[in-house]
Amino acid sequence: MTTTATIAATAHERLVLAKDASRQIGLLTDEAKAEALRAIADAVAGAADRIIAANADDLERGRANGISDGLADRLRLDLPRVHSLAAAVRDVADLPDPVGRILEERVLSNGVHLQKVAVPFGVVGSIYEARPNVTVDIAALALRSGNAVVLRGGTAAQQTNAALVAVMRAALDALGIDPEAIQTVDDFGRDGAHALMQARGLVDVLVPRGSAELIETVVTQSSVPVIETGAGVVHIVLDESAPVEWAERIIVNAKAQRPSVCNAVETVLVLRGGAERLIPPVSAALRAAGVTIHGDEEVRAFVPEAIPTTEADWSTEHMSLDVSLRIVDDLDAALAHILRYSTHHTESIITTDEKHAERFLAEVDSAVVMANASTRFTDGGEFGFGAEVGISTQKLHARGPMGLPELTSTKWLARGAGQIRP
Amino acid sequence: MTTTATIAATAHERLVLAKDASRQIGLLTDEAKAEALRAIADAVAGAADRIIAANADDLERGRANGISDGLADRLRLDLPRVHSLAAAVRDVADLPDPVGRILEERVLSNGVHLQKVAVPFGVVGSIYEARPNVTVDIAALALRSGNAVVLRGGTAAQQTNAALVAVMRAALDALGIDPEAIQTVDDFGRDGAHALMQARGLVDVLVPRGSAELIETVVTQSSVPVIETGAGVVHIVLDESAPVEWAERIIVNAKAQRPSVCNAVETVLVLRGGAERLIPPVSAALRAAGVTIHGDEEVRAFVPEAIPTTEADWSTEHMSLDVSLRIVDDLDAALAHILRYSTHHTESIITTDEKHAERFLAEVDSAVVMANASTRFTDGGEFGFGAEVGISTQKLHARGPMGLPELTSTKWLARGAGQIRP
Repeated sequence: MTTTATIAATAHERLVLAKDASRQIGLLTDEAKAEALRAIADAVAGAADRIIAANADDLERGRANGISDGLADRLRLDLPRVHSLAAAVRDVADLPDPVGRILEERVLSNGVHLQKVAVPFGVVGSIYEARPNVTVDIAALALRSGNAVVLRGGTAAQQTNAALVAVMRAALDALGIDPEAIQTVDDFGRDGAHALMQARGLVDVLVPRGSAELIETVVTQSSVPVIETGAGVVHIVLDESAPVEWAERIIVNAKAQRPSVCNAVETVLVLRGGAERLIPPVSAALRAAGVTIHGDEEVRAFVPEAIPTTEADWSTEHMSLDVSLRIVDDLDAALAHILRYSTHHTESIITTDEKHAERFLAEVDSAVVMANASTRFTDGGEFGFGAEVGISTQKLHARGPMGLPELTSTKWLARGAGQIRP
Repeated sequence: MTTTATIAATAHERLVLAKDASRQIGLLTDEAKAEALRAIADAVAGAADRIIAANADDLERGRANGISDGLADRLRLDLPRVHSLAAAVRDVADLPDPVGRILEERVLSNGVHLQKVAVPFGVVGSIYEARPNVTVDIAALALRSGNAVVLRGGTAAQQTNAALVAVMRAALDALGIDPEAIQTVDDFGRDGAHALMQARGLVDVLVPRGSAELIETVVTQSSVPVIETGAGVVHIVLDESAPVEWAERIIVNAKAQRPSVCNAVETVLVLRGGAERLIPPVSAALRAAGVTIHGDEEVRAFVPEAIPTTEADWSTEHMSLDVSLRIVDDLDAALAHILRYSTHHTESIITTDEKHAERFLAEVDSAVVMANASTRFTDGGEFGFGAEVGISTQKLHARGPMGLPELTSTKWLARGAGQIRP
């Protein structure tokens, strides 16, 4: 297989080509987009050897540069991983087309017929880190929603991403679709990321994926509108009325099922009236699941082996089997703690007191607010979206898990017969 | 009347107070918000003398500084204008509450009940120019949608805005609503605007209103998410099939009814096949309405008195009784011109050829795309929104005329009974 189309020489040229290509992509039918994604899936699976060879080059360079085992594992592609990448693209192909949905419709008294319809953004940019699966994921989600895509992955995965992009572009080209709809600016290093962040008018939206530092950089440096997918300092509140069984089950699930993800709980706030009844069994269940508890003096009266908390604990996303426990006076104190330390991702309360539940749901200002459920449910797949673009922690455009419809904008269509404004 | 609450000493303190107050405002009932707006309307009308006196100070200072007659007129408040300000607030009070709408709802197979509900942003910021009516408009729209508001108006209107803000704050205070929900940072000059643009985490969204330069500055300098309300280089295309009567009526309306607004047409593109039939009557109708025509050599063959166009004409928002005319080969050439020069606000085609109309509606990438209607219809009032926050020319969150619902975000509520993720 060869790289069908030459990749333009400058980042700006590539962005212009992506913008041009976005007009063709935006007008493709549902079936044409699904077919393009199936062709990409077949091409990725068919080029597994080439992709794995490029990945081996990245891994070797990484080892020479002394990258960590964790990074190497995120970077590594083997045959099962390549096939699961292709399968994920086929899943996206099967999703309903988000473009063309009529979101509002009305006929004005003068007879003008108004429709608000979903349209593609145009060009979606993404800046992300070492996982090469993001390269294929974002490209598939963008194309399925009628957008061209410009990718900027981590330097560590540069050969892998180049191979993946070449394979995807060739698959489009073979179908007569402009391959310039998929672009990478990886080979320009920091300049590529900078060009992407300053490409107002060429790139319509930028979705950073990765560490809090990466997202902060993109949000503060970009003049292209950004959808912020943020870190999760996630809280669970144990009300005085919390059933022990729910408290144990939900907190263990929320912390230990997959501690390295953004919807894992970081801080458990226990209302003082329930502390004596709830802390001993919950902390025992957590310890049985391998969790290290951090607590202040009050907590350590119940859990002597807890690590003393510091102020930093309350704003830390551990990404590990660590959880901070705190006793608070009442629901007001719990809400005040969340207001101060939450990243507004997900919070849950365990309670049988409906007034406390409804107050919590109304007053907590986070993307997802729960009563009596595990915070691990904050996920596009769990919400039934079929795919997830990311979890937005901002309030503009999209909040919480984002599916394909969140990669579309809208436009108003007005059909008249000579009407003028009086 | 006195300023009930002391205005804090630094811009940052005011932003923190606004954020605190936003929690109370966000939980107000529909009726409480409507009542607050009616109280503000009464207070503004009741304090007309004081507001007009402050305005006279601004006007006097302006005259001493040599401001233009146009600016003085935009700045001036007299008794009818103050009463129409109050009336506009009462209209907003009567609009339906956008908060609490259930936008999506589903029960997952595990029994967790999910709802996506409309919630206030929190704190809405606005940076704008000399019109003091924006001060009251934006405050009313923000409060009606459950938000606190931070205002930064033009220096020329500083005394007027200070009086309006004091009156509105006192009205809230009298109802037991935290007056800190309405803040101004006018008295900090550029530092106030800068504080507002850098207030990520305190201000949730920034809506600039004013000149293209102001909006460009805010978009490029703000790290707070911005809703861009942009300039309109608006196009009308005359297809070969355009009925002369529709062409004359729509173009005269779109240009001459109110030339100083963003939905007024700036460029008319005539398909070559229709030029001879359409240009003479349309240009005669425009001239009869006092419009100056700009045209290239081809156009001047039909309209000898047309001012020769330069390249700059095609990207100019005249804001005056001037329009640029151009003959293009076909619809493709018209679409290419629009793609190159449009600000993506509004474009319209006059045609009886349904294929051309549908192609235009599908392919033009603007907030509002029309067939056979005046571009002057791009307006929240005309669209039936009851009020308009502005006309968004960006693709994120809101596009086209924005009503109250566009001043809300969403959150997901999840209600369970102990469910965990398997």
